[in-house]
Amino acid sequence: MSETVILTPAVVDLLEKSVDAARALVTASTSTKNAALEAVARDLRAHSASIVEANGRDLAAGRENGLTDGLLDRLTLSEARIDSLADAVLDIVSLADPVGESVRGSALPNGIRIEQVRVPLGVVGVIYEARPNVTVDLAALALKSGNAVVLRGGSAAENTNRVLVDVIQGAIESVGLPRAAVETVDAFGRDGARQLMQARGYVDVLIPRGSAGLIAAVVDESTVPVIETGAGVVHMFLDESAPLDWAVDLVHNAKVQRPSVCNALETLLVHSASADALLPPVLAKLAESGVTIHADERTRALHPAAVAVTDDDFATEHMSLDISVAVVDSLDEALAHIRRYSTKHTESIITNDLGNAERFLNEVDAAAVMVNASTRFTDGGEFGFGAEVGISTQKLHARGPMGLTELTSTKWLVRGSGQSRG
Amino acid sequence: MSETVILTPAVVDLLEKSVDAARALVTASTSTKNAALEAVARDLRAHSASIVEANGRDLAAGRENGLTDGLLDRLTLSEARIDSLADAVLDIVSLADPVGESVRGSALPNGIRIEQVRVPLGVVGVIYEARPNVTVDLAALALKSGNAVVLRGGSAAENTNRVLVDVIQGAIESVGLPRAAVETVDAFGRDGARQLMQARGYVDVLIPRGSAGLIAAVVDESTVPVIETGAGVVHMFLDESAPLDWAVDLVHNAKVQRPSVCNALETLLVHSASADALLPPVLAKLAESGVTIHADERTRALHPAAVAVTDDDFATEHMSLDISVAVVDSLDEALAHIRRYSTKHTESIITNDLGNAERFLNEVDAAAVMVNASTRFTDGGEFGFGAEVGISTQKLHARGPMGLTELTSTKWLVRGSGQSRG
Repeated sequence: MSETVILTPAVVDLLEKSVDAARALVTASTSTKNAALEAVARDLRAHSASIVEANGRDLAAGRENGLTDGLLDRLTLSEARIDSLADAVLDIVSLADPVGESVRGSALPNGIRIEQVRVPLGVVGVIYEARPNVTVDLAALALKSGNAVVLRGGSAAENTNRVLVDVIQGAIESVGLPRAAVETVDAFGRDGARQLMQARGYVDVLIPRGSAGLIAAVVDESTVPVIETGAGVVHMFLDESAPLDWAVDLVHNAKVQRPSVCNALETLLVHSASADALLPPVLAKLAESGVTIHADERTRALHPAAVAVTDDDFATEHMSLDISVAVVDSLDEALAHIRRYSTKHTESIITNDLGNAERFLNEVDAAAVMVNASTRFTDGGEFGFGAEVGISTQKLHARGPMGLTELTSTKWLVRGSGQSRG
Repeated sequence: MSETVILTPAVVDLLEKSVDAARALVTASTSTKNAALEAVARDLRAHSASIVEANGRDLAAGRENGLTDGLLDRLTLSEARIDSLADAVLDIVSLADPVGESVRGSALPNGIRIEQVRVPLGVVGVIYEARPNVTVDLAALALKSGNAVVLRGGSAAENTNRVLVDVIQGAIESVGLPRAAVETVDAFGRDGARQLMQARGYVDVLIPRGSAGLIAAVVDESTVPVIETGAGVVHMFLDESAPLDWAVDLVHNAKVQRPSVCNALETLLVHSASADALLPPVLAKLAESGVTIHADERTRALHPAAVAVTDDDFATEHMSLDISVAVVDSLDEALAHIRRYSTKHTESIITNDLGNAERFLNEVDAAAVMVNASTRFTDGGEFGFGAEVGISTQKLHARGPMGLTELTSTKWLVRGSGQSRG
């Protein structure tokens, strides 16, 4: 740690309540947890006027502080958006409760039965930026998976989050669960986040959601275990046998459908044997949608409007209508490029060659490795997980879209009849 | 971090070789990995004389440096012990390879198939103390699970570990796998451990094995994700209905069979309604085996030879023939005591009451929760995992005995036929 952070009595008091709430949630039945979610959805709609009012104050402050239009949009909660948030909470009601699921089990030779079952993680901390929808999503996912959650939501959304947490706490209390199941340290400002990172023994896992800078800072400072959700320098490789229509459609979909998200395409690699046939129509369609093409020399020979690509471009998650393009002479060269620049989020090959498809699936090291699909499918919703906590780009505990299961740990239940160890 | 540690070129060079080796291991077949394990077992036996010779130098230095008899014993490798180590390596050959196992999968509504499969973690770092058997165990488990491993084994075993790693690397190379699959940073001294803890991007997970102090230091300093293996302040609760013979046998087995390990019993709690009947015979049998009994007042009334127990005793993992004993008036009081002092390793109830058994299993938060069994069964070998990496006492990624499966991550394989996201 850069310096020792002492937990203040007020934060310790809050965290002790979170630990107690987590203990109550461990044994809460699925129907009680679902009733809490239904109450949350109901109360969000019932209090939408005061949420919009608080949000208006945050938006006014944000405009004064010069937030970009993109950030202001993410910060905005209209009545319609609150309605969708409430719908999303109800969607989580219909998902299976992971708690109690039997993962594996066996009878030992001495007759003891062992069974590994899913249990809640306990207290989950989340540090995120000015997106009040995350407040609701995370509270709902944590409730369903039996976890208490301590949120730190960023000062730009402070008024909105305060009202949201109040509404959620009231709903939870109305079904007899402890209101401290959802807590916020926003009132402690920046120091709240710093204390959360040092709250070993209270907080079981910390999930940072937001910019690469935020995530790096949390990884660096935190002594609580962290799950990184993260950046996507996402590649597609058009193999020699890539069908033209798939190449055109999938590259366009992966780049253009929503360029600001982590599973959007950043770098296109094309086999030299098919570059003449594929690149002109693929890049023409991108250009039609306003994509700026950063390309190597061989690509620029086929698409002179492109600007020269740099090493930095290949390493950058643009999150904008920019794409880096390079021609490679083999699958091995494509794999080497991906190995060098990938952030291990999502990589896709477009091919009709079974051997190359299998090599790509086996050899690429990423959370999601695809054949003949748009990279935009790496998503908890698309994978059928309902809402998602984030997309883990690390290898420990969870990798890829994180749903309810990823918010659980396990424990071993051991049932004997008087056995001693020999 | 307490201060920024810069990786030296020599360490970066070593780690880059580890990363390359890890990549080769990802696609190594189970039969190749098993051939490597067989070669390791063969070469350990073939080089036992030089291993014993190097070990002799470490033992001589250890005696000069005043190591305790216990530490010297753990440091010692005789021909017979090397033989058992080789046998343990061959045991791992017969275990199932976790790599490639399908964890779950489904077809999405659009026809895309998603499948979550197990993959190696990549590069696993292990920091441990003067136990050369860990060098062999970890190298073998890492090989079988397709991981490269970077070891830091403690200066007291430096000569022994150097020869062991040489022998293992030779064996690995003899079957065509890269020798860097097993590496050591021992040559870099203490600085090797510190650099390993900062080797983000090279090392995927760091596992400290050893004293509570070592583990706490690694958790504090490391920016690489850590799996804690750990301390066990282990409890048994003799419920009102605990059968006398089980109470006597299981408490004795849990405390006495091997007091120096983490799953040994530290604190005995007894229901007041059965204390008169159970405590005298249970404690008499412990006393016969030389156990020092630290007890509360009500226990001392039944067993006057006991010394007074302190709060510190309840919080201490003695790892010796000492036990703390207290009488409680209810299951709830027992659960509260366990909640306060447990390190969440292993807790056991001895009871004939089904309701209390289920409450104990559900409400106790620990890696292993037992009914009517000795706590000594929390062990990778007993659970059927073969050798074990350690026993995780944290909730993220792995909890309880860690075998081959716990040395894997997953990735999502996504197979489409031209799907774009709508």
